[in-house]
Amino acid sequence: MDKYYLMAPGPVTVAPDILAKMSEPIIHHRSPQFSAILTKVREDLKYLYQTKNDCLILASSGTGGMEASVVNLLSPGDKVLVIRGGKFGERWDELCNTYGLKTVNIDVTWGKAVDPKEVKKALDADPDTKAVFVQAHETSTGVKHPVEELGALVRERPNTVLVVDAISALGVYELKTDDWGLDVVITGSQKSLSLPPGLAFVSISDKAWGLVEKARLPKYYFNFLKEKKAMGRETTAFTPAVSLIIGLAEVLRSIRTTGLPSIFAHHRRLSEGTKTGVTAMGLELFSMAPSEAITVIKSPEGIDGQNIVKILREKYGITIAGGQAQAKGRIFRISHMGHLDEWDMIIALAAVERALNQLGYPVEFGKGVAAAEKYFAQNG
Amino acid sequence: MDKYYLMAPGPVTVAPDILAKMSEPIIHHRSPQFSAILTKVREDLKYLYQTKNDCLILASSGTGGMEASVVNLLSPGDKVLVIRGGKFGERWDELCNTYGLKTVNIDVTWGKAVDPKEVKKALDADPDTKAVFVQAHETSTGVKHPVEELGALVRERPNTVLVVDAISALGVYELKTDDWGLDVVITGSQKSLSLPPGLAFVSISDKAWGLVEKARLPKYYFNFLKEKKAMGRETTAFTPAVSLIIGLAEVLRSIRTTGLPSIFAHHRRLSEGTKTGVTAMGLELFSMAPSEAITVIKSPEGIDGQNIVKILREKYGITIAGGQAQAKGRIFRISHMGHLDEWDMIIALAAVERALNQLGYPVEFGKGVAAAEKYFAQNG
Repeated sequence: MDKYYLMAPGPVTVAPDILAKMSEPIIHHRSPQFSAILTKVREDLKYLYQTKNDCLILASSGTGGMEASVVNLLSPGDKVLVIRGGKFGERWDELCNTYGLKTVNIDVTWGKAVDPKEVKKALDADPDTKAVFVQAHETSTGVKHPVEELGALVRERPNTVLVVDAISALGVYELKTDDWGLDVVITGSQKSLSLPPGLAFVSISDKAWGLVEKARLPKYYFNFLKEKKAMGRETTAFTPAVSLIIGLAEVLRSIRTTGLPSIFAHHRRLSEGTKTGVTAMGLELFSMAPSEAITVIKSPEGIDGQNIVKILREKYGITIAGGQAQAKGRIFRISHMGHLDEWDMIIALAAVERALNQLGYPVEFGKGVAAAEKYFAQNG
Repeated sequence: MDKYYLMAPGPVTVAPDILAKMSEPIIHHRSPQFSAILTKVREDLKYLYQTKNDCLILASSGTGGMEASVVNLLSPGDKVLVIRGGKFGERWDELCNTYGLKTVNIDVTWGKAVDPKEVKKALDADPDTKAVFVQAHETSTGVKHPVEELGALVRERPNTVLVVDAISALGVYELKTDDWGLDVVITGSQKSLSLPPGLAFVSISDKAWGLVEKARLPKYYFNFLKEKKAMGRETTAFTPAVSLIIGLAEVLRSIRTTGLPSIFAHHRRLSEGTKTGVTAMGLELFSMAPSEAITVIKSPEGIDGQNIVKILREKYGITIAGGQAQAKGRIFRISHMGHLDEWDMIIALAAVERALNQLGYPVEFGKGVAAAEKYFAQNG
């Protein structure tokens, strides 16, 4: 038997009906049929984003959406502020340095959320800061940064925009693009949308469009103004990833039918049940501002987290994720995103118990599972 | 009935077994299973490319591959030569201008191929030219540029590389990356590979890697050195478009089994049959260096080519392509790329006869079809 379980924080498990939908014959991208799909998708993205802003669709992975935001908002030498508390915060910094921006980093210990007071201090110190770059959820640490508070801080500054990498946040838990004043919000297809990788999405506020019109960093494939113009003609600037967009249309339709509150509650439930289970095993959570997207667990003293991941993958056919960069070996991560339910979480917990037992960590079989079962029973 | 026929030059028709393959459950991109697929795919790409060079895979449409080549090879102020004889030649020029390169264009009348002597003259005039940008096949006009001759010209110049957009050429007809000295060759998933759009491919010669190491144009998502490093670890620098690569693995396997000569012969046959058919109808070919990828037909005097395209789409469910930019209304284009056979060409020809009849052009029903049938019968 080689049954395969995907519980990593992206790519995630895609539902069979969506896989089937994406296997329908390809239609031409410059056709009235596809234009109608694209227009519907763009409307449905606004529901997902809780925004009236334009939502652009790019054929790239999430990093493409991040780079697109940098090059479309800024000009050489612009001052920017980066919240750097994990691998993806570092990516913002690398991107800004690549393009010759004057970057100030707020370094945050991995596992902690940024303190909005630090951000306020930095912005007060340099009111010329053009953009603040942050993760809504830092996938490498499982930390939720307080983007609502950051939105409130940035909103009152006429010359600054807030750029939010929400790749593993949007559609997972509450994130109010307009109400919170999030100027640019980026997501990807392979996280909460439960699609294969290959699409990035970017929403852009009026304030951010103001910057886009003046931005002088070079760009061609990732060009917001060209995409906006193409949107007016119900198309995309370059050939879109047709099959993924067909899947997207189905996913977004289902999200509207189910409603965001139910979807958020689903992730919260899987997350809480899992966190309850691992805590009952005697394990500790790594994130001090834990998210509903993933559960990030500290490897017990003397046990390499990579070995837990390896046993699950090789022995049980279950793919979870280890730590990256400085967190490598110290943590392991279980996703609540994707086509997963509470029984998948029970499997993950049982498998972690088995792996820990094999590695010599004293765990009582079924203890974590029992706690999760109880949580799920009481929170139906 | 709304049976749908896709005969445009990309996206193209994808075979049902490949669509089914791509609807298999998504696997994680950092897993031994996916690494094995990736490594096999990279080897099989070398067969397709007829090269020993590295072949990179990017999650983007073909234009992303074009931009990647510009930013990874060059530094600000570098001198480049662009062959500009259609919409995609213009794209090279736009890309080079975006990045502040000193661009010399050789303008070629749409429908004609570049004269290698012109290229030689330009290179002799400026031996500092770092790169020559050309299309192997200009999809907007159906013209094959003489890249073999250009390769011979550029090969003997130690400071110049030849960059070939082969998006609608590679895998369609003979294109010998190594033998012809093509330093950088770009293609995409949605043309001869008969996959959905969303992947770009770039092969890079040793001479080109020399430039890559010194190139100072900014880049992040499209980064050849990072991709090469990731290749060494049997992975990609950023999340790859997993489902498309699964389809790609199948397509490349089938290409190796069938063999390039048979695949080229298939395209040649569809192309010749179609060209014979349209000529028999009294129509003229637009391209003076016609390709096996598409047949580009001049609209008869007084008939708007867009109307032919529209009738085929709206009345008959057949998607072909019209002209772009200055060729809009003057031409229409039928693809030979994708999961198509001679019977599809018969359908296209019959539908063109019907559309022309409706538009008042004096065409005898069946005349083009008869000529094509005869060609196909004699060239089994």
